[in-house]
Amino acid sequence: MPLYDLPLAQLETYLPDVPDPEGFDEFWAGTLAEARAFDLDVRLEPVDTGLTLVETYDVTFPGFGGHPVRGWLTRPAGEAGPLPAVVEYLGYGGGRGLPHERLAWAAAGYVHLLMDTRGQGSAWGTGGDTPDPVGAGPAFPGFLTRGLLDPAEHYYRRVFTDAVRAVDAVRTVAGVDPARVAVTGVSQGGGLALAVAGLVPDVAAVMADVPFLCHMRRAVELTDARPYSEVSAYLAVHRGDVEQAFRTLSYLDGVNFARRASAPALVSVALMDVTCPPSTVFAAYNHYGQPADGTDKEIVVYPFNGHEGGAAEQLGRQIRWLGARLGAVDGVGAAARLG
Amino acid sequence: MPLYDLPLAQLETYLPDVPDPEGFDEFWAGTLAEARAFDLDVRLEPVDTGLTLVETYDVTFPGFGGHPVRGWLTRPAGEAGPLPAVVEYLGYGGGRGLPHERLAWAAAGYVHLLMDTRGQGSAWGTGGDTPDPVGAGPAFPGFLTRGLLDPAEHYYRRVFTDAVRAVDAVRTVAGVDPARVAVTGVSQGGGLALAVAGLVPDVAAVMADVPFLCHMRRAVELTDARPYSEVSAYLAVHRGDVEQAFRTLSYLDGVNFARRASAPALVSVALMDVTCPPSTVFAAYNHYGQPADGTDKEIVVYPFNGHEGGAAEQLGRQIRWLGARLGAVDGVGAAARLG
Amino acid sequence: MPLYDLPLAQLETYLPDVPDPEGFDEFWAGTLAEARAFDLDVRLEPVDTGLTLVETYDVTFPGFGGHPVRGWLTRPAGEAGPLPAVVEYLGYGGGRGLPHERLAWAAAGYVHLLMDTRGQGSAWGTGGDTPDPVGAGPAFPGFLTRGLLDPAEHYYRRVFTDAVRAVDAVRTVAGVDPARVAVTGVSQGGGLALAVAGLVPDVAAVMADVPFLCHMRRAVELTDARPYSEVSAYLAVHRGDVEQAFRTLSYLDGVNFARRASAPALVSVALMDVTCPPSTVFAAYNHYGQPADGTDKEIVVYPFNGHEGGAAEQLGRQIRWLGARLGAVDGVGAAARLG
Amino acid sequence: MPLYDLPLAQLETYLPDVPDPEGFDEFWAGTLAEARAFDLDVRLEPVDTGLTLVETYDVTFPGFGGHPVRGWLTRPAGEAGPLPAVVEYLGYGGGRGLPHERLAWAAAGYVHLLMDTRGQGSAWGTGGDTPDPVGAGPAFPGFLTRGLLDPAEHYYRRVFTDAVRAVDAVRTVAGVDPARVAVTGVSQGGGLALAVAGLVPDVAAVMADVPFLCHMRRAVELTDARPYSEVSAYLAVHRGDVEQAFRTLSYLDGVNFARRASAPALVSVALMDVTCPPSTVFAAYNHYGQPADGTDKEIVVYPFNGHEGGAAEQLGRQIRWLGARLGAVDGVGAAARLG
Amino acid sequence: MPLYDLPLAQLETYLPDVPDPEGFDEFWAGTLAEARAFDLDVRLEPVDTGLTLVETYDVTFPGFGGHPVRGWLTRPAGEAGPLPAVVEYLGYGGGRGLPHERLAWAAAGYVHLLMDTRGQGSAWGTGGDTPDPVGAGPAFPGFLTRGLLDPAEHYYRRVFTDAVRAVDAVRTVAGVDPARVAVTGVSQGGGLALAVAGLVPDVAAVMADVPFLCHMRRAVELTDARPYSEVSAYLAVHRGDVEQAFRTLSYLDGVNFARRASAPALVSVALMDVTCPPSTVFAAYNHYGQPADGTDKEIVVYPFNGHEGGAAEQLGRQIRWLGARLGAVDGVGAAARLG
Amino acid sequence: MPLYDLPLAQLETYLPDVPDPEGFDEFWAGTLAEARAFDLDVRLEPVDTGLTLVETYDVTFPGFGGHPVRGWLTRPAGEAGPLPAVVEYLGYGGGRGLPHERLAWAAAGYVHLLMDTRGQGSAWGTGGDTPDPVGAGPAFPGFLTRGLLDPAEHYYRRVFTDAVRAVDAVRTVAGVDPARVAVTGVSQGGGLALAVAGLVPDVAAVMADVPFLCHMRRAVELTDARPYSEVSAYLAVHRGDVEQAFRTLSYLDGVNFARRASAPALVSVALMDVTCPPSTVFAAYNHYGQPADGTDKEIVVYPFNGHEGGAAEQLGRQIRWLGARLGAVDGVGAAARLG
Repeated sequence: MPLYDLPLAQLETYLPDVPDPEGFDEFWAGTLAEARAFDLDVRLEPVDTGLTLVETYDVTFPGFGGHPVRGWLTRPAGEAGPLPAVVEYLGYGGGRGLPHERLAWAAAGYVHLLMDTRGQGSAWGTGGDTPDPVGAGPAFPGFLTRGLLDPAEHYYRRVFTDAVRAVDAVRTVAGVDPARVAVTGVSQGGGLALAVAGLVPDVAAVMADVPFLCHMRRAVELTDARPYSEVSAYLAVHRGDVEQAFRTLSYLDGVNFARRASAPALVSVALMDVTCPPSTVFAAYNHYGQPADGTDKEIVVYPFNGHEGGAAEQLGRQIRWLGARLGAVDGVGAAARLG
Repeated sequence: MPLYDLPLAQLETYLPDVPDPEGFDEFWAGTLAEARAFDLDVRLEPVDTGLTLVETYDVTFPGFGGHPVRGWLTRPAGEAGPLPAVVEYLGYGGGRGLPHERLAWAAAGYVHLLMDTRGQGSAWGTGGDTPDPVGAGPAFPGFLTRGLLDPAEHYYRRVFTDAVRAVDAVRTVAGVDPARVAVTGVSQGGGLALAVAGLVPDVAAVMADVPFLCHMRRAVELTDARPYSEVSAYLAVHRGDVEQAFRTLSYLDGVNFARRASAPALVSVALMDVTCPPSTVFAAYNHYGQPADGTDKEIVVYPFNGHEGGAAEQLGRQIRWLGARLGAVDGVGAAARLG
Repeated sequence: MPLYDLPLAQLETYLPDVPDPEGFDEFWAGTLAEARAFDLDVRLEPVDTGLTLVETYDVTFPGFGGHPVRGWLTRPAGEAGPLPAVVEYLGYGGGRGLPHERLAWAAAGYVHLLMDTRGQGSAWGTGGDTPDPVGAGPAFPGFLTRGLLDPAEHYYRRVFTDAVRAVDAVRTVAGVDPARVAVTGVSQGGGLALAVAGLVPDVAAVMADVPFLCHMRRAVELTDARPYSEVSAYLAVHRGDVEQAFRTLSYLDGVNFARRASAPALVSVALMDVTCPPSTVFAAYNHYGQPADGTDKEIVVYPFNGHEGGAAEQLGRQIRWLGARLGAVDGVGAAARLG
Repeated sequence: MPLYDLPLAQLETYLPDVPDPEGFDEFWAGTLAEARAFDLDVRLEPVDTGLTLVETYDVTFPGFGGHPVRGWLTRPAGEAGPLPAVVEYLGYGGGRGLPHERLAWAAAGYVHLLMDTRGQGSAWGTGGDTPDPVGAGPAFPGFLTRGLLDPAEHYYRRVFTDAVRAVDAVRTVAGVDPARVAVTGVSQGGGLALAVAGLVPDVAAVMADVPFLCHMRRAVELTDARPYSEVSAYLAVHRGDVEQAFRTLSYLDGVNFARRASAPALVSVALMDVTCPPSTVFAAYNHYGQPADGTDKEIVVYPFNGHEGGAAEQLGRQIRWLGARLGAVDGVGAAARLG
Repeated sequence: MPLYDLPLAQLETYLPDVPDPEGFDEFWAGTLAEARAFDLDVRLEPVDTGLTLVETYDVTFPGFGGHPVRGWLTRPAGEAGPLPAVVEYLGYGGGRGLPHERLAWAAAGYVHLLMDTRGQGSAWGTGGDTPDPVGAGPAFPGFLTRGLLDPAEHYYRRVFTDAVRAVDAVRTVAGVDPARVAVTGVSQGGGLALAVAGLVPDVAAVMADVPFLCHMRRAVELTDARPYSEVSAYLAVHRGDVEQAFRTLSYLDGVNFARRASAPALVSVALMDVTCPPSTVFAAYNHYGQPADGTDKEIVVYPFNGHEGGAAEQLGRQIRWLGARLGAVDGVGAAARLG
Repeated sequence: MPLYDLPLAQLETYLPDVPDPEGFDEFWAGTLAEARAFDLDVRLEPVDTGLTLVETYDVTFPGFGGHPVRGWLTRPAGEAGPLPAVVEYLGYGGGRGLPHERLAWAAAGYVHLLMDTRGQGSAWGTGGDTPDPVGAGPAFPGFLTRGLLDPAEHYYRRVFTDAVRAVDAVRTVAGVDPARVAVTGVSQGGGLALAVAGLVPDVAAVMADVPFLCHMRRAVELTDARPYSEVSAYLAVHRGDVEQAFRTLSYLDGVNFARRASAPALVSVALMDVTCPPSTVFAAYNHYGQPADGTDKEIVVYPFNGHEGGAAEQLGRQIRWLGARLGAVDGVGAAARLG
């Protein structure tokens, strides 16, 4: 796909008027209060991965509705801490997979919590383990239209709440420095990271790559790629539900979380991305931290990439960017020399 | 798609050894008993459709778990009955739509109950109105892998139960002759009709067009078209769940319902159908009513069609076939003549 | 396909300068006079459909060149009339199919004449029965480029004439009120309805859904979907015929019929329709009835639909809209009650 | 497309039982007699092509029904003859194009007549100029289903007759040796060449590359590529016409012409050809000249090609093969030397 | 593909600011001097093609680095000359093929040299015979990214040099008038013709059809068709190489050659061409011969064609256009008349 | 893609007769001797990755022709060894990327050498850094047809030699136990691992996932997916080179390496893999270690996967399988406990 969205110069200042629905803050305050009413019972079962440099735990913590949410916690072996932590959220359709798959953050000295996404984890990769015990009205296959007619029923209300509780959970883990917890994710994971940035004021840093779930009406009208196209597919059948659907989505829109956020942020965007159109990412980024101009934020532009974005190159930038902000364990490996 | 499955001569005698799982009958007896423990409270709200020849009602009846299931009941205007009835089930992804869409059975003198499919109705057409209030473990987008690891949790356990209760419901409607209730459907609807044939011994007739949900393991290994491919997509991620998944599906397989059925049956199959491969349809048809050779059954073969099958041509055959078996209202229109 | 044409706000006032070729009125006056020189010998053969609420007739009437054109006439059984009538034209590639397929208008109390499209009826559905006995010069497969170099030779000259004669024919049928004849159709059928609106001043109402054959040069340059792409495919080979081809098409363009029409009109358009781009539909709609601002016209916009447009939802609107204008049989079914 | 048809070893002896319909010979004898009742009025208009080594003429001759059929006749400039001639037929959808496009046969010393295909010439290339003035019943877009229900009405009856008359015509051209007339063509052109081989016993040689129109029922059931798929598309709508359609096609099947032919033949086939499956080509080739085992025939197999087959490589083989059988002008160029 | 680039009226005056890199002239002067340091040893081996009107030679001449480059030289049989000559370059992926494939220029009285493209000739047609003995750094499959980070290493530096040496070579052939040498080509061949126009001041005429390799940055950002997409694919991996890559390409950009050229030029462009977007062709054409307004140049616009452009129709125009400028052999065939 | 190759039961005993060309052993003995004549000058530059648990080095070693080949060497930080080592080869089109991408082997206590693939590394991922300084004759875009007509010139002769030298190189690294060096790779990397298994008798273990480059003639005839289709594309142009091409490939075929190998082997195969058809993998696996029945080998079958195969699940199996055979560092992490 060639360049198809606004030119870069326009994207850099693109600040669209995205509806900020009345009661947004109350909606989320109530939602989180309800979830936090469940005891934060974080269970950690050690896992034998065959890896010697890290320790891995199978984590279960209570998310939305107190429902058990799974994850992997990986940390440098034998490091007592306190260590900074990175909570990572997954891309659409994937699950937490296997515990030897994502080792970079632990190898960089962080406690790494990878949160499973409820109901997902069967479309790619090596699987997820977290059910979503809540049913739904008629929905297009996928997750984006489950509960589309009511923000209180929408699937992502539950997932965003899980994401907040994942931060709550990691802060209770022994050896974690609760003041140094960052959130990160790619695509849907980036959308979750932005949501957490808006909902947990004291998160220490946010990294969102090619984030999904931003400026959703524009996205749905601009691209026919999945998963945004689930919404247009739904509305092509439920022809009378257009306004109600987008009202629901406004309670879940990354732009609305971004404008409430203030943590240091590193975002990335790809100009040939048809899954998460660049203007929707810039809409969130440009609103991020507004009107506080002094926000510590940065966006990395990948001009010839699609939704893969910066991939491992961006991960490398993140390791450096986050290291400069949160520090990390040192000592081990610092004086690495051969022979 | 050209011919790709077995040659017709082999299809006609194709009688594969499909697993008939231990406890199948108990599983379904228990399931139905549980559903029938809920009061059969059938609500009928008259609808103003602008149509003058028929009366239409918005129906709600309790399905699996007593959950409310919706439908449209359409009947010749002003006919007291008793009339024969046709219960129709829908294809995958569709909903009951609007009440003026499917008029042929009422125009032919039957009471017609079109059952909505829980959770579906957002992929094509004009929509569905029935939620599925039950959540699920990690599943591939769609419905076929919800609850794939346990027959008691599987989505189609609930839908098949709804389908049985739709027959129960229509039999209570004033003016319906409970001894003359037929079931019909295309694709998923045909699969449901076969399931009902196996679960409700005294249904008067069964019409199943290009039925889905038959000989599922073969289907999943033979075609990469949706929705069967949802299962292969799931198993491509959950690599260790193969045997458990197919064990679950065996409790839902049309072949197993067909071999327990005995009502007169009219089936259709299309030889270029890649959605529901012809061998999977013949597998169900050839087992139907076994070993009672005297079963009144017939299969119509469409050699150059894909999944659209016989479409309206098959509907015409059905009107004649069912008329010969169940009769229908006559009087109105019988002596129709122009001026 | 996402939104790709002009924004809705621009579409609503889009009034492009579509060529209105010299001699357009004479061309059509001559064409119709020639066709009407053939005796309007309307034959009606009763058909046994198995339906009891309606009567159906296999219709043959003389179209362009006096060639026999087929159709189905369906009416409420036993209603003497006079009844209002609806003449329906078909989408591209389809045929009249089977007489039990389209029952809504008769069920709503109208005499319904479904006109077969000459030469078509082999691409989808259950078939057509009307030959086109006229040959053509070199043409791209399909119908749009047959006779592309001369309006007198063009295929649609014949079809539009058939459509006018269908109105003439139904007005002669016993029990039809000739003052209450509406025309309707989807896609190509909508294009024909618009043409008839421009050619038969006293048609009582016009319903055109996602109409084809409007503002054709723009359409050909804007979309590569069939059937408009037949024209670009032809011109990619016959590189020197561009101006002559579009001159021919201007005699057949829905915009030119629309600006000559005045009957009450209900149009629909879908904003993600790549088969009939929304700007080409608005071009016809905005010109419709010009400059008489008082024209009774309305357009229904489906923002997330492709060429399926409003489908049965639009049909529901039409039943109400036409009922308000033409009335319909009542009595039967009006007091419909259960039990 | 990989290998998908029978293995080569089986293809080499593949001799299927293709229906040879009763009255085949009478049908064609009558058809040709009727066509030959029209005067063979061959018109040749010189054309200024800018080419100096050849002379080119715009040819018109009477084909089926006496309808004017166009072509290009190209010959070595200034050669009085008598020269051997090659009549070439075109692939599906193409037209005779422009007179400087196909120069090899004239450059090799032959009189070259390129026959336009009636009604075609708008799908690729630079166009055709020959109308088909005969209409048709309902047909799928394209040419293969025009008149599908009656061999007397079928489109290819007319085209095959044109092809025979092209041979008749070239034999009357001054400077042509009527005993040395070969026919050639690719795909549809190869099918026509085979038909002429069966209908004109004294044609001097036949060259058919990846020929279309052979063993058509197998082709339609084996491939979904166009144009064979036009037949399956038609039969998917006209579900009851299967046997009648294939009966018609049997009068036009290359296998039936091949078994009546005896001229020296050079055929080519490509094993990855999904447009004209290799087994259908071998079916014609293996029947060619049967049971006369002494027939001078050869087939060239291209194992890794699709429908492009041998292309210019096969043309090179043909120049040598035909030169060895028909000789060609020599003298000009024979002693070619540089400087 | 419909119209997707700038409107024609804008294209006609489109004169973008394409970077003209410092040292461009020195780069090419040095490159050519280095190549011309190798002896121009042109070898001509006569080939027996079976064609009698022309003589054909298998040519080898030294290109970039003195590497042997192959070609076919075809000329009117027995014509001593001096004759004008046409040097033709090939489209991307093709090779010189077989010597009987391209006969029009020789048939029009020219000496025709068809240059093989080093390393190519395996993607379509009948093959190439010229290796490229130079390796490359990591590159995307294809040729456009070989040596992308340094103009001195780029593949097209070698090919353009070969193209210049082909002109040098044909001028040494006996019977060729060195003052009347034209260059021509389609797509990549057109790009090469433009490059030669800029590098060989005294070439007599230039014909470039739908030329590739012009205004490359815009092309890469505007289309995702191959081969331009090789560059975006490369940059999607080598994310940091964007500026260096386009700097390299600026040394090879047809716009920069065009603005240095002055020979009479005939260009063609297709408005629906997604392989070589029309704006990139106009960018080169509008710069061609600047600021000398008196340049003899013409562009032919094909409004409904894709990358096939004018094809044989454009060839016909070229024969007339070049004939008017370079004359050609006459005498043979000039007075061509039949019998 | 559904199951399309042989049934599993047949695959398990599939032992086809793959040509074992004369001189195979001499060819490779000579090739390796020539490469080993270059000094094994292994350069290791420490890299600052920001990771603290591992040390990473940018490696350069001399491959085929002494050409510099790049890689990343990653090892547990501060572990003196001797450690076992894993040499990993990459999939087609990828490069070594960035040093923080593949951490599992080092995290499991091995020295990990990831070898870049010469000329590749621009199709996916984050890039490669190793040029292939050798040119080629005409080739289809990609790597499989470079030098297709001569095993001495073929691209993979160079790459396989690089792969052998990578093993030679890692054995010289301080802290590596040369007796415990395993090779591994996915797809092309699996093909390379098998080649090394056949060429380096004392490699300690081999892991090959969905290996490419096995039983290549069957692969080319069975699938049209890239990269095998590069060969069919080439042969579709170079129609006369079929036998010579496959003779070349037989010197590079994984089956021929497998039958010469004896190291313990863990192979994986996916039954819906159209890139590397399962029968071609089984052909190599079933020949592996023949006729020594006692070979320590195992194949893991993924029945519903395509070319992604077992992915991280297989990696987990490999960590366990290799750990059981080569041991690994322990001590660090072994007593991992939380808090």
